Amino acid sequence: MTVHKIGIIGLGKITEDQHLPVIAANPAFDLVAVSSQRGIKVDGARTFRAPADMYEAMPELDVVAVCTPPQVRHAIAREALAAGKHVLLEKPPAATISELDDLAAFAAAQGRVLFTTWHSQYNAAVAHARDLLAHHSVKRLAITWKEDVRRWHPGQKWIWTAGGFGVFDPGINALSILTEIMPTPVFVRSAELTFPENCDAPIAASLAFATNGPHDSLTAEFDWRQTGPQTWDIVIETDEGTELRLANGGARLEVNGELDVERKPAEYEDIYHRFAQLLRDNRSLVDSAPLRLVADSFLIGRRLTTEPFHE
Amino acid sequence: MTVHKIGIIGLGKITEDQHLPVIAANPAFDLVAVSSQRGIKVDGARTFRAPADMYEAMPELDVVAVCTPPQVRHAIAREALAAGKHVLLEKPPAATISELDDLAAFAAAQGRVLFTTWHSQYNAAVAHARDLLAHHSVKRLAITWKEDVRRWHPGQKWIWTAGGFGVFDPGINALSILTEIMPTPVFVRSAELTFPENCDAPIAASLAFATNGPHDSLTAEFDWRQTGPQTWDIVIETDEGTELRLANGGARLEVNGELDVERKPAEYEDIYHRFAQLLRDNRSLVDSAPLRLVADSFLIGRRLTTEPFHE
Repeated sequence: MTVHKIGIIGLGKITEDQHLPVIAANPAFDLVAVSSQRGIKVDGARTFRAPADMYEAMPELDVVAVCTPPQVRHAIAREALAAGKHVLLEKPPAATISELDDLAAFAAAQGRVLFTTWHSQYNAAVAHARDLLAHHSVKRLAITWKEDVRRWHPGQKWIWTAGGFGVFDPGINALSILTEIMPTPVFVRSAELTFPENCDAPIAASLAFATNGPHDSLTAEFDWRQTGPQTWDIVIETDEGTELRLANGGARLEVNGELDVERKPAEYEDIYHRFAQLLRDNRSLVDSAPLRLVADSFLIGRRLTTEPFHE
Repeated sequence: MTVHKIGIIGLGKITEDQHLPVIAANPAFDLVAVSSQRGIKVDGARTFRAPADMYEAMPELDVVAVCTPPQVRHAIAREALAAGKHVLLEKPPAATISELDDLAAFAAAQGRVLFTTWHSQYNAAVAHARDLLAHHSVKRLAITWKEDVRRWHPGQKWIWTAGGFGVFDPGINALSILTEIMPTPVFVRSAELTFPENCDAPIAASLAFATNGPHDSLTAEFDWRQTGPQTWDIVIETDEGTELRLANGGARLEVNGELDVERKPAEYEDIYHRFAQLLRDNRSLVDSAPLRLVADSFLIGRRLTTEPFHE
């Protein structure tokens, strides 16, 4: 087995919680370096302030995982590809559609692997829902993604800035499941985005989708003002009357009220297994569909204003 | 020479002003039918209320031009491709990025030609600017697109609705020139969109762009509140100090203050010549870059509110 010498760029919460332990447990990867503006150190790896220094000092590095905030991912990923590295991108893979399309084209030109990860797609229940829907028409689909922003994003001021996505930061996880399980492309038909009057990103959104086939209604409700029980559910009714309920953010699937699949989430374990396969096959996996749906929602969405948000 | 039997779907102002006379003067096309919800008639062509009736009654029709409002273009173009027709799309080619990407994939699967037209790209001065910039770095670029909405869009309520694009309706013409003349991809780095407080689309926008290369500043100013002289200019300074001024919406090019190219616009003549070439080669031309920049501007743009707009 090839062991890839990997570097991580950006050492925030998701890196500490997921990437570091998952890489340590995967024999296909050997973490040899990290690039951290704040100079954070990781046992067994060299630390660099800038990716360019890392590439110069450690030419044996062949893979990087980019876990910085999305605003700087495009420049960092371009620099990595230019240096001949294969690249894994945390979600969302770039700040804009144009940036992501540029990265896909550049990776192809460089002959390097580019892997856009959408962690919510890596769930056994999601894969099973996709397989069940492959041979059915979806008649009705309702996404309900309601959580308490104060609980999950304390102190994260950037999520309220323009380009910070607001409630689409969790909402894009639901959209990544939607595009994964639907057997045909999905389009945003209309959208209402609710902005707190003191914020530049929405706190809630209502979306209506269309497909190229017939259907009754396909909708999503995102809300960051949900206290008490939190909801990350997708309920689907097929044309034959079967009801699928994907609950807990894609970790549990019920079919007609009966438990079908429930697995302790192992999203990042699956992501790094897939990455090892892609590297072996020298094949990129660039999935821009979730980011496109967000951009389309902002493009055609009507803006409503609500009371100011204070943490 | 093959003569293509063409049908036009949607008989609004741009069809009357441009498509009808230009098709009549181009021997590669024979206008045999029109599809008009309002039942508008055109000499020498049969009129149908719905495209499906047109396809059924006239199987010899091989090409359609879709000139409806953008909100319905995706469904109409899909229906045409499914019926085996080659398709020309007026600008903007679809309401969302997801819709346009779906049309490109479907046209390829159907083996039919899809042609996204951006009329401002079809100017001798634009082509010459592109050729001049092919071997230079752009140091500074400033788009100024300022016109009087009351003069150019009287009574068009749909442009003020969500998804109606607002000032990006003319602005996307500037963006289509930008992506055509720039030798490398362009990204939106930041955007400010100014909405009248009674409208769901912006009346003005300020954009800042980035490229993968070094540059000083790349900007665009769109404004629909310009009375008096109207401005549709792009001024470019190269790293060698050459100044290009594309004026009058791309019809005139000055280089270092000297007139270089000026031609009476023949945008739609050139569009239909290109379409005939694409049909001959059975080759699609799908340019999504201008629409992507608009979607990206809405995605990362900060929203400002200004006084209500009343026509």
